[in-house]
Amino acid sequence: MAAAAPAAAWNFAPNEALLGLTAHSVRGALGRVKAGMVADGGGGGGARPVIPMGQGDPSLFPCFRTAPEAVDAVAGALRSGEHNCYSSCVGLEPARRSIAQHLSNDLPYELSPDDVYLTNGCAQAIEIICSVLARPGANILVPRPGYLFYEARAIFNGMEARYFDLLPEKDWEVDINGVQAIADKNTVAMVIVNPGNPCGNVYSYEHLAKVAETARNLGIFVITDEVYAHLTFGERKFVPMGVFAAVAPVFTLGSISKRWVVPGWRLGWIVTNDPNDVFQKTKVVDSIKSYLDISSDPPTFVQGAIPNLLKNTKDEFFNKTIKILRETADICWEKLKGINAITCPSKPEGSMFVMVKLDLTCLPDIKDDMDFCCRLAKEELVVLLPGCAVGYKNWLRITFAIDPSSLEDGLDRLRSFCLRHSKLTK
Amino acid sequence: MAAAAPAAAWNFAPNEALLGLTAHSVRGALGRVKAGMVADGGGGGGARPVIPMGQGDPSLFPCFRTAPEAVDAVAGALRSGEHNCYSSCVGLEPARRSIAQHLSNDLPYELSPDDVYLTNGCAQAIEIICSVLARPGANILVPRPGYLFYEARAIFNGMEARYFDLLPEKDWEVDINGVQAIADKNTVAMVIVNPGNPCGNVYSYEHLAKVAETARNLGIFVITDEVYAHLTFGERKFVPMGVFAAVAPVFTLGSISKRWVVPGWRLGWIVTNDPNDVFQKTKVVDSIKSYLDISSDPPTFVQGAIPNLLKNTKDEFFNKTIKILRETADICWEKLKGINAITCPSKPEGSMFVMVKLDLTCLPDIKDDMDFCCRLAKEELVVLLPGCAVGYKNWLRITFAIDPSSLEDGLDRLRSFCLRHSKLTK
Repeated sequence: MAAAAPAAAWNFAPNEALLGLTAHSVRGALGRVKAGMVADGGGGGGARPVIPMGQGDPSLFPCFRTAPEAVDAVAGALRSGEHNCYSSCVGLEPARRSIAQHLSNDLPYELSPDDVYLTNGCAQAIEIICSVLARPGANILVPRPGYLFYEARAIFNGMEARYFDLLPEKDWEVDINGVQAIADKNTVAMVIVNPGNPCGNVYSYEHLAKVAETARNLGIFVITDEVYAHLTFGERKFVPMGVFAAVAPVFTLGSISKRWVVPGWRLGWIVTNDPNDVFQKTKVVDSIKSYLDISSDPPTFVQGAIPNLLKNTKDEFFNKTIKILRETADICWEKLKGINAITCPSKPEGSMFVMVKLDLTCLPDIKDDMDFCCRLAKEELVVLLPGCAVGYKNWLRITFAIDPSSLEDGLDRLRSFCLRHSKLTK
Repeated sequence: MAAAAPAAAWNFAPNEALLGLTAHSVRGALGRVKAGMVADGGGGGGARPVIPMGQGDPSLFPCFRTAPEAVDAVAGALRSGEHNCYSSCVGLEPARRSIAQHLSNDLPYELSPDDVYLTNGCAQAIEIICSVLARPGANILVPRPGYLFYEARAIFNGMEARYFDLLPEKDWEVDINGVQAIADKNTVAMVIVNPGNPCGNVYSYEHLAKVAETARNLGIFVITDEVYAHLTFGERKFVPMGVFAAVAPVFTLGSISKRWVVPGWRLGWIVTNDPNDVFQKTKVVDSIKSYLDISSDPPTFVQGAIPNLLKNTKDEFFNKTIKILRETADICWEKLKGINAITCPSKPEGSMFVMVKLDLTCLPDIKDDMDFCCRLAKEELVVLLPGCAVGYKNWLRITFAIDPSSLEDGLDRLRSFCLRHSKLTK
């Protein structure tokens, strides 16, 4: 074979903007945290199991195993042989119809199948929305702490991401004044995540009404990430942002990933909540369809399974999941109180997460949140997400959605880690 | 509820570049062709069935039903409950390992699992490659006729797409002089599709060697779309471009969609064929990983099924598919000879397609290829792809991968349509 031409001979040069984006991803951060653990040789190989409290994916724990009706629905669609084909760019009509009906139960108006666009999980829904809203000079408002995937996709599409604060002292409500302060004529939308990732909060009807009025006054759309919809276990019930869609048009992003505990099945959706047809008039709908024409689809047979999956899944399954999440949220809340270097501003009421503050003055040999997580993983085989991955330096995101005994074990290891490193002060 | 604010009050303005891209998609073109048919009320509702010869998806025809071993592999991975979780951004290691071994059988060197990146079908593989290669000022060389998805994704990512010709009189070989004429220092890669979509050609070892030398001299990478790999039924055997990767680095794009006739399963791959580590040195690998960090993954349980799917699928299945494709290619070739307004430059030897030239002088009341396809669909319920959708005005792409009797019926209707419209000249 011919020898290789020197690298310098190739015209390709990397897109540095792209290379920088990994820093914004949960995956990138968790990769760095786990790398140390693996380098230590402790990665699950030691006597103690690794406790995975870094990602919202409890699917491997038997107590969070998905509903058998859901598995049967997908297996049936696969075996039928009728869903091996390409889908349409918006998704199969029966799936869109059943999702429209499913979501309409919580709304003051009826959604139509045409309001629903199927996506390859919520990740692709975010990609599509950012691609549709992006234009030169445009900006989008995103929450801090928040899921940096939005910023990464916005930046990649040449759109600016501006941050507004969530207020820990007010159950992580949106800082409405902050939103008004950073918005301008080029602001196209604001993002909320409810139930909250990473904060575990649930927004009240009154607060969501305020968000809608604010968006309307600013002339911006609301993107509501409701992938944790109905996963609430505290005082507050989940209220969909779509309830206020007549005030400001709403993109609702959702999926079966969390409520059915199947993030690997890759079935999500974008729903246009818009009783006044603003999205139609402003060509948002045309833009979504255009982008979908050059995008990949979710698996056709999973689309084909959706009507049966929604119809057949029993309440027992949902109730069981909520019961375990309530139990693990309680364990998490109680045990965190006993850890000196960590403070938790409010008890989680939804999703699978809680944000806690690190007091580094108690931990003299710990540099920052990333250092904390890397050393915790290495020394205790406990994986947490450093706050930097959600734009909140020196905080931590803890996932309590794992089986209760593992959670207790993990939090005990976290406690002894903090104690051990606090001792160094003496 | 509050009344809607007037549309003018919303800051959003559509990205016109995005809106223009639909014109480049096969889906967009087929949508226009079928729209007329539906408006006619004839859409399958008539006595005659619709003959779908527009898309390379024969999965609904019993004779093209996928292998039972493939269905069992996916059903088993689903039932195991071990693949409901998120995947890693590059994909599950066992799947990547088995694909690496599978493809190495045809190569003079061994691929490693790290050379393989799993994607949500080949469509996402194209999206990823265009995103990775794009940088301000960069351009990519794509074939005409060709699959405009490349141009659409390049344009969306701010990269220029430049066309080189495929030569109908030379079995659709690449016009090497044309490639050299349009390449410059900002050209990062050239795309070939082999076996050919839309042309049905298969490139010889010698021609692929020429392509590699040309790429090397220009300092550009080769992107080879081999989604129809091994679907050949003529004289020429399929030769993977990766054979020449030591001359010029090669991105091989593939999927199970076509060979296993399951485009709806959404499992494709990007393979870096690069024995000299040029992709490593030039940060292509880092760029791919960064983009995958902010992309959605293919379904985890389909990834989990890949080792068994590749290991257990029997040759009988592949041989049966090839036998039917050879038969339908023959039927197509023979029947097209009998249609006055259509000429076919060469008999297809691979993929599922053939490109034919329209002689509009015989069809006085037909405006162009789109008009031809819309009226054919409306009058005969036969769906063909107008050449404009593959950058080749007043040609047609015909898919012969449907069951033989439907194909004969469709080609007979095509013939009577041409006869009927030719008569008008008298």
